[in-house]
Amino acid sequence: MAKKKSSSSKSVKNETSVGVVGSGSFATAIVKMLVENCRTVHWCVRNEFVKGAIELRGHNPTYLTSVSFTPRSIKVTTDINELVSECEVIVLATPSIYLSDAVEKMTCNYENKIFISAIKGIVPKVNDVVAHYLRDEFKIGFRNQAVIAGPCHAEEVAMERLSYLTIATVEDEVSEKLNALFSSSFINVHSSKDILGNEYSAILKNIYAIGAGIASGLGYGDNFTAVFVSNAIREMEVFLEAIYEAPRDVNESAYLGDLLVTAYSLFSRNRNLGNLIGKGYTVKSAIQSMNMIAEGYYAADSIYKTSKEKKLNTPIIDTIYGILYEEKNAEKQFKKLTAKLN
Amino acid sequence: MAKKKSSSSKSVKNETSVGVVGSGSFATAIVKMLVENCRTVHWCVRNEFVKGAIELRGHNPTYLTSVSFTPRSIKVTTDINELVSECEVIVLATPSIYLSDAVEKMTCNYENKIFISAIKGIVPKVNDVVAHYLRDEFKIGFRNQAVIAGPCHAEEVAMERLSYLTIATVEDEVSEKLNALFSSSFINVHSSKDILGNEYSAILKNIYAIGAGIASGLGYGDNFTAVFVSNAIREMEVFLEAIYEAPRDVNESAYLGDLLVTAYSLFSRNRNLGNLIGKGYTVKSAIQSMNMIAEGYYAADSIYKTSKEKKLNTPIIDTIYGILYEEKNAEKQFKKLTAKLN
Repeated sequence: MAKKKSSSSKSVKNETSVGVVGSGSFATAIVKMLVENCRTVHWCVRNEFVKGAIELRGHNPTYLTSVSFTPRSIKVTTDINELVSECEVIVLATPSIYLSDAVEKMTCNYENKIFISAIKGIVPKVNDVVAHYLRDEFKIGFRNQAVIAGPCHAEEVAMERLSYLTIATVEDEVSEKLNALFSSSFINVHSSKDILGNEYSAILKNIYAIGAGIASGLGYGDNFTAVFVSNAIREMEVFLEAIYEAPRDVNESAYLGDLLVTAYSLFSRNRNLGNLIGKGYTVKSAIQSMNMIAEGYYAADSIYKTSKEKKLNTPIIDTIYGILYEEKNAEKQFKKLTAKLN
Repeated sequence: MAKKKSSSSKSVKNETSVGVVGSGSFATAIVKMLVENCRTVHWCVRNEFVKGAIELRGHNPTYLTSVSFTPRSIKVTTDINELVSECEVIVLATPSIYLSDAVEKMTCNYENKIFISAIKGIVPKVNDVVAHYLRDEFKIGFRNQAVIAGPCHAEEVAMERLSYLTIATVEDEVSEKLNALFSSSFINVHSSKDILGNEYSAILKNIYAIGAGIASGLGYGDNFTAVFVSNAIREMEVFLEAIYEAPRDVNESAYLGDLLVTAYSLFSRNRNLGNLIGKGYTVKSAIQSMNMIAEGYYAADSIYKTSKEKKLNTPIIDTIYGILYEEKNAEKQFKKLTAKLN
């Protein structure tokens, strides 16, 4: 069976002190993964209301409410300095648009700490990926960074359905430490060295998932979606090669697998956003009707501009950008796109 | 819109004489594609009952019953010699297990005819793919052969939802002729030179779709399915390279796209067969409960043996073979498989 019993009663606990920053569904899923292995997981949430609600009820009041935490398994705070000071490993799992609000409050010493990005979006303030933002603004080098990639919908982690994570790091030692923190009866962890490739891939897949949703909303079927996704992974490969050449196989789970789960799953908020647009909602009203942030919307702007700067042939990104930001008609744009796919 | 009006009233008709052999859903879908372009499509069906029913009601009595044909657009027969004699291009679209029954009746001259295989399975009589069967048993060389690959579920063709075909041929001239026959407002055609790769890929994807179905039936979720499929396409690449080295990108629609539509679509009979097995049906009862042939079941036996002969590392094929042919327990086998995926 894919669903397994929790092993949180495991007797030998991991001694690494670890904290999670963020209050959304993926942050909550990560706390759930970590309490499998750690005595106490530090958790920095957005505000006192969320903190109070988690402490009172033992679960996140808004996201993944089915996941319960025992009081001694988590230590909740709203103070990022408290969390960073107490932890060797810090997982950043806010929506990308809130990341700078959270980390710019850091005044404590964070030298030698490991920062893991579980964020799949562009930091608007610098219009760049998290790895570059942390390096340039906080002098956190790539040796002290890691990226977590899926395919890993939080909703399935909540159900303890077997999921696979890829953790990208520069150092083998860091890789081993992090693998031990996350591996459990329902999480298989694999290692990668491709920090930037994994981060960009996680961002791109959200844009492609919006596209898959638009196609579905417009009435295209499974045959077309399969063609669309097979073109998307090839376009992703072109983009990643242009950003950062590395020995990578885009058919590994962190790239293709993450694209598939986002483009095909009904849990995917990016796909759902696209579906509403395809059905005729305006972009604004589609965004307003969702109570979660579809990272792909914000990413499309930055990724499109990067594609133009680098003169890449990215017809899918161009099409989605046009629909999201230039008020182009989704039906007409997709009709044009169909002739460019093969 | 993906769904478009039929263009069967197109004034200039294709002059190539073309026939389809087969009475199932994909054969019917192919006749539908061809009547878009041809004045009359020859259609060789299994028996007089099917012939009579099509002629009387204007549609296939059992499969894709929603697709209507005007009497003058088709010429139905049960005599393959009549069809082959009258046609330059013959599309073979029977289930693989019935192919030899059909074509071994050919006594007419078929030199210089083009035979297109739309069959996605192994010919049991010779335990080999259709391209080899036609070459070895009928002396039909690869220059007179073509292979049609998806992603192209017949059910969506019936609805005129935009679909893409890849047609693999050796000769450019044949490629052009066939592209013109199949292209229409709802069919985009692309060319390939990889006859064997396309044929094996179409067979392998059915086996992987059974696997995706088993996983679903066992309770694995979207995260796992994405990992499974991303491993399957890599395994397919290994297999295809071992069978026939060619400059191919397995992320093209004919390979990855066809795998996706079969592994993800609820229209997929192979996925449905796997799903029943995952839910606890015996293999025999699962097969009996379906009124269509799941090609992947028959293919798994032959493909597994080829993999062993060539000493390939194909853990997914091995797992599915064990479940289908060695009465191995699906739950235990998938649990073991999860450790081999990444």
